[in-house]
Amino acid sequence: MKLYDLELSGNCYKVRLFAALAHIDLELVAVDFLAGEHKQAPLSDLNPWMELPILVDGERILRDSQAILVYLAGQYGGAAWWPQEASLQAEIVQWLSTAANEIQNGPCAARLVDKFGYTLDKATALARSSRILGLLENHLQRHDWLALSRPTIADCAVYPYVVLAPEGAVDISPYPHIGLWIERIKALPGYLAMPGS
Amino acid sequence: MKLYDLELSGNCYKVRLFAALAHIDLELVAVDFLAGEHKQAPLSDLNPWMELPILVDGERILRDSQAILVYLAGQYGGAAWWPQEASLQAEIVQWLSTAANEIQNGPCAARLVDKFGYTLDKATALARSSRILGLLENHLQRHDWLALSRPTIADCAVYPYVVLAPEGAVDISPYPHIGLWIERIKALPGYLAMPGS
Repeated sequence: MKLYDLELSGNCYKVRLFAALAHIDLELVAVDFLAGEHKQAPLSDLNPWMELPILVDGERILRDSQAILVYLAGQYGGAAWWPQEASLQAEIVQWLSTAANEIQNGPCAARLVDKFGYTLDKATALARSSRILGLLENHLQRHDWLALSRPTIADCAVYPYVVLAPEGAVDISPYPHIGLWIERIKALPGYLAMPGS
Repeated sequence: MKLYDLELSGNCYKVRLFAALAHIDLELVAVDFLAGEHKQAPLSDLNPWMELPILVDGERILRDSQAILVYLAGQYGGAAWWPQEASLQAEIVQWLSTAANEIQNGPCAARLVDKFGYTLDKATALARSSRILGLLENHLQRHDWLALSRPTIADCAVYPYVVLAPEGAVDISPYPHIGLWIERIKALPGYLAMPGS
């Protein structure tokens, strides 16, 4: 099973982190992102969206880090991370949407501007970061984990760009319950770091 | 089962549309959005994100239209719309992420500016609309439905803000395969329209 991967991408890190926590073997294929390898065949055929990560497992090809987490957890990771019950899956999907939208367009976008020179609106990214970090802080004041009462793929989807937020000049020190949640994730057996985390 | 609803919201329409297609009874509770009812108790307690829709089914409270689709389909709608197999769920989640991010920040954002006077960056929303509509067009050139070979909650999540795109001055007429997909959805038994669709 191959993961087309970029070490500095938080979206790729979501998958690497979960695979490490769930003891799933991935063959990492480093993509030369700066040279635009993801915008050329064969990668642009695997993912016409020209984004990373991409997972290839036999005949199955998946884009989108959230979808890859669902696949790996459901197929290989066991019910602890992605249960069978629709009501529990829905609790998790709330946070997969958060990762895809509020986190991606908040702390992730701020980091893209500061660290990689993307021409995105930094003020909007900062405002969105404040909103989502405030909502996260309030939620984590009453819950140890984002969904259910244990770590799930919800935590793996949201965590990377929160812990990397300072690389976009987003200060997470005013959010003590986010800090405690980060420590709980770092203490999980099998935890895998990335540069900046 | 109550859906806190706004008739003109495409996110609420995702849920109303799916419930109609899957013959699921919902009690619609109209929310006075202009008066800010969603920002006050009791609604802000049900959803601290202060957004619609909100689903309340007994003790269960869900925000986020994608999560609500997963819940309704998995709990009440049957496996046709949201299968049990993780590999098929992952195919669908790719499009739930698309609905949460590219569609929300593309054609939905453009419509929020034009129809409701939101102070969002219209040029960015139009650029994002072009990109996602081009990707959708290419996908639908080779597929009748977004995920799997039948309609699923993926189509219900992406359809509303695509068919409403002209309300944000996003022209969908240059995308013939999107047009054919829209016609296929409108022909589904039980299809429910909304103003603007």
